[in-house]
Amino acid sequence: MLTLYHAPNSRSSRIVTLIDEMGVQDKVQIRDVEIHRMFPEGGGPDPANPHPEGKVPLLVDGEEMIRESPAIILYLLERFPGTGLGIEPGAARRGEFLSWIAYYGSVFEPVVMLTRRGIDDPFLRDNYRGLPEAFAAFRRALDQTPWLAGDRYTAADLLLSSAFGWWPEGRPDDPVICDWIDRCLARPSVARTMARDQPALAG
Amino acid sequence: MLTLYHAPNSRSSRIVTLIDEMGVQDKVQIRDVEIHRMFPEGGGPDPANPHPEGKVPLLVDGEEMIRESPAIILYLLERFPGTGLGIEPGAARRGEFLSWIAYYGSVFEPVVMLTRRGIDDPFLRDNYRGLPEAFAAFRRALDQTPWLAGDRYTAADLLLSSAFGWWPEGRPDDPVICDWIDRCLARPSVARTMARDQPALAG
Repeated sequence: MLTLYHAPNSRSSRIVTLIDEMGVQDKVQIRDVEIHRMFPEGGGPDPANPHPEGKVPLLVDGEEMIRESPAIILYLLERFPGTGLGIEPGAARRGEFLSWIAYYGSVFEPVVMLTRRGIDDPFLRDNYRGLPEAFAAFRRALDQTPWLAGDRYTAADLLLSSAFGWWPEGRPDDPVICDWIDRCLARPSVARTMARDQPALAG
Repeated sequence: MLTLYHAPNSRSSRIVTLIDEMGVQDKVQIRDVEIHRMFPEGGGPDPANPHPEGKVPLLVDGEEMIRESPAIILYLLERFPGTGLGIEPGAARRGEFLSWIAYYGSVFEPVVMLTRRGIDDPFLRDNYRGLPEAFAAFRRALDQTPWLAGDRYTAADLLLSSAFGWWPEGRPDDPVICDWIDRCLARPSVARTMARDQPALAG
């Protein structure tokens, strides 16, 4: 049995949704922990969370501690193959799939956070580019196929769209991208994660 | 034959080094292109570079375009297995290995860039933490094993240490970490990449 350390309504919620989509709820136990939150400010590292920085998500599989959403997603997909949520090594579009998963953490999330904080630094902009380039990347993919990495919904769609769950005002003025966001966020798995997280938030 | 689009002395240099370490130089053709540079400012997107944002590294394998260093590294390792530079799926420390690869793009490089730009934002700090936490992560690993993900040098060491190639002043006051950086940067493959890149820079 693997363990996912999860804080309701946080970056680990998308991993809860992935576990649901993969149908491996009986193989990964979800353990709720507290984290430090900024809005409103409160909470803090939870002694029950073995992450050295008190962050989530953290996945534990025996001796292995796996951190960062892109790594956890790739690890779960190869630990439980055949769920249809990934693109297997050697298959067409595997490279695109890996690119989207890496792009999320390496580019898209930094761009979203810099944008939300109103930080516009020429060096960072030169390295990361900005939201227009990110939306252009989404659009290039979605002009070809209904989902980012082909004809079916994958963990790439789940991961990239998750940003718009906590940043709805970030939706671009682009009907193709908004339709994709809507299709991603309308997955029953997303509603189940929100329903699951709600009592902890209310409590 | 795959093609790596590469700009000398840039983020793609580490992929050139990886190709060397893996011994797959006969399977991946390296094509030099120009990029926009900040220090000194100059250059620009190269029409010969198919990357939609004019960035490097970009790996092309038939129909597939793979972007972002973490994705390119994972793709090359699974495309050419058995080179000893990765940790294969299912093997011990696979999760740690994936975590380091994801941590580079999702945390370490943003932290390095924010630090270099002197940007200290409470929200970004809460999300990324800072250099002390990054160095503590290196140290936890290196207190256990000589390399980040175990007893042998892997692409995780190559990727994480690459930052200190272009940011030598970022080396911490920690002999264990500095010894690891030195061992990584002293690899003959690193010297070969620098020697290869030098004429283009001088020219």
